[in-house]
Amino acid sequence: MSTQTVEQAMLALGENARRAAREMMRATGAAKARALTAMAEAIAENRDTLKAANEQDLEAARANGLSPALLDRLTLSERTLTLMAEGLRQVAALPDPVGSIGPTTVRPNGMRVAQMRVPLGVIGIIYESRPNVTIDAAALCLKSGNAAILRGGSEALRSNLALARIVRQGLETAGLPEHAVQVVDTADRAAVGKLITMTEYIDVIVPRGGKSLIQRMSAEARVPLIKHLDGNCHVYIDADADPEKAHAIAFNAKTYRYGVCGSMETMLVHEGIANAVLPRLAEALIAHGVELRGCPRTQALVPAARPATDADWAEEYLGPILAVRIVDTLDDAIAHIARWGSGHTDAIVTENLGAAQRFQREVDSSSVYVNLPTVFADGYEYGLGSEIGISTNRLHARGPVGLEGLTTYKWVLTGEGQLRG
Amino acid sequence: MSTQTVEQAMLALGENARRAAREMMRATGAAKARALTAMAEAIAENRDTLKAANEQDLEAARANGLSPALLDRLTLSERTLTLMAEGLRQVAALPDPVGSIGPTTVRPNGMRVAQMRVPLGVIGIIYESRPNVTIDAAALCLKSGNAAILRGGSEALRSNLALARIVRQGLETAGLPEHAVQVVDTADRAAVGKLITMTEYIDVIVPRGGKSLIQRMSAEARVPLIKHLDGNCHVYIDADADPEKAHAIAFNAKTYRYGVCGSMETMLVHEGIANAVLPRLAEALIAHGVELRGCPRTQALVPAARPATDADWAEEYLGPILAVRIVDTLDDAIAHIARWGSGHTDAIVTENLGAAQRFQREVDSSSVYVNLPTVFADGYEYGLGSEIGISTNRLHARGPVGLEGLTTYKWVLTGEGQLRG
Repeated sequence: MSTQTVEQAMLALGENARRAAREMMRATGAAKARALTAMAEAIAENRDTLKAANEQDLEAARANGLSPALLDRLTLSERTLTLMAEGLRQVAALPDPVGSIGPTTVRPNGMRVAQMRVPLGVIGIIYESRPNVTIDAAALCLKSGNAAILRGGSEALRSNLALARIVRQGLETAGLPEHAVQVVDTADRAAVGKLITMTEYIDVIVPRGGKSLIQRMSAEARVPLIKHLDGNCHVYIDADADPEKAHAIAFNAKTYRYGVCGSMETMLVHEGIANAVLPRLAEALIAHGVELRGCPRTQALVPAARPATDADWAEEYLGPILAVRIVDTLDDAIAHIARWGSGHTDAIVTENLGAAQRFQREVDSSSVYVNLPTVFADGYEYGLGSEIGISTNRLHARGPVGLEGLTTYKWVLTGEGQLRG
Repeated sequence: MSTQTVEQAMLALGENARRAAREMMRATGAAKARALTAMAEAIAENRDTLKAANEQDLEAARANGLSPALLDRLTLSERTLTLMAEGLRQVAALPDPVGSIGPTTVRPNGMRVAQMRVPLGVIGIIYESRPNVTIDAAALCLKSGNAAILRGGSEALRSNLALARIVRQGLETAGLPEHAVQVVDTADRAAVGKLITMTEYIDVIVPRGGKSLIQRMSAEARVPLIKHLDGNCHVYIDADADPEKAHAIAFNAKTYRYGVCGSMETMLVHEGIANAVLPRLAEALIAHGVELRGCPRTQALVPAARPATDADWAEEYLGPILAVRIVDTLDDAIAHIARWGSGHTDAIVTENLGAAQRFQREVDSSSVYVNLPTVFADGYEYGLGSEIGISTNRLHARGPVGLEGLTTYKWVLTGEGQLRG
């Protein structure tokens, strides 16, 4: 396809999506749940078709020399299919976020003012090789009453188109507009360029992928993004920490899973407790295969630690490395996080109420914890029921984004003929 | 100044603002109120200085042939100064929006999850000739714990710099950082270009001004905007409207003030009630000096109406003109608004509960009214206490934006050492 043809195709998708969004706005919770349940059933019924389409993607990927890790992410295994169907049923069972009306205030003239939760409109999701995102993202957009345009990785195109047929089947069963969920059917990169600039048709883009993808999109997008950049997360062990809790929390924050965005990347330790906590904790981490990089005072207590440089304070390792710094005060810890952190998730371990409150108030991150490991950064753990991603934006949705983050509100005012004058 | 010098000056403002924002985040409600009260007092004490600075702007503006309307907007009269001081005292008295913690949920593992309201960070305000916006905007940004960079019209530069000194005096009295509010001190246009792209220093821009200013900024900004585009507002008189209410509401919606964004621009009338309502209403509007432009059926009932074209359905007149269309059904009214409206404020007049509910649910505007004129579109009327503007965005703040729209939230989680695993 020429770039011009791709752009026209994207405009057509956009127009369809906008029209579908108008209908979706009125869809009942029952219809949306029915569509999601029908999709879960259709996945079970079409396992072979889905796996055949996925096998074609896998063959091409193998021929292109994709890494085993990427091949693994691309694979629609029996287990993935089961989890996808389960996920659909779970989202179907969540309460409908649309149409609820918040607290109503009565103005002096008697008119009543409230906010009604409503869909955002058209949501674009741009993601990489995992085809299961097609179903997850479709489910969340649908449940929140939006129309969605999904653009997955080119290496998963056949899988995604097969999944799109499942989605359409579910929409049809429930009498919802077929264009409520559309999958971009070209691998052409111009499609993304058009998608992120069609402000007339798309209300928000959720890019899911590596930092370089997100940065490129941020630079070029005209449509607002709900995006996730860095997760340079800190655990600060305060002077008044319980040493046992500190040990367990810090160990869990680093070793739960190296690759998650909530993983601890730098540990700050108050000098008053460093002796009591750091040597044993360092030993446990090193035994677990974690490399430590420390400030000079850390190295004095933990000779195995390599020296840390400024680059270490800035780095999101997403791997078995941990930077460690001993600080003199709570203020120094807060200042370190303000200087080097990424505003994602940061935690304090302390039994001191004042320190906990100051840390929670003064650390300007999307999530701030007391006595919990940073790896709880996840919509399910927060009770959101589901998660489209984690936002490091300041506007609109911040931190884990559930269904509510895919909605907005409108003001609803009701009177009996009050006039302004 | 060269463009390069301007850019460097803006970067310096940005850096100062970011540093001030970190301090402002921790400012107590008492300190912020004290600063605002001190500013009100300083205005009273410095009336002569302020009026002298303003007189210099006015002289230059007269020499440049500014229109009487613009000269009027530029003038800091005794009354304007009094209103500015009053406004400051009112904002001082509002509850502090920062630090409040919403409902707390307890997760199955016992950890507690809540959201704390926090400042957005650094807010840029770009506005035109009214110097009183300098004080209004400074007050709202300060009260919500943000740092502000204000860029007013070049013709008001001397007035704005004089007002900036008042603001600094208030900040100093309260022990708040002097850079919490900064006024751009150059009339160079390059300053705006830099301001709207300094994503590292500015979290959001609120542009206040005409549509062309906003459109230009939208096209070039990299910083998110809280913006207001069109206010093409509708009143739909339903078949089941009370004719007296319909008359009063429609008349008020058109004639309260032609120039406000909530002013009715198109009136839709159900064919079943047109005979009973339209001739008398048209007569009253025409007597008031309003020109009517109608569909053929409207013209049949109101011979004085000129024919309306599609351009009329699209137009925001902001003047004594009204487009009128007779529709067959509620659905047709909703469809007309979806096709031609700007998503600002739309109203239905009806005694029918089902019609009211459908209209309020299905009209996708930032404010949807039942039995109220659209001219209530104003933060004070909604009970927000103050208003930085009205947003036609879908993300973040929608409709009238008060102090809360200048804040965001962070997640605060508290546990006793729960681990993830």
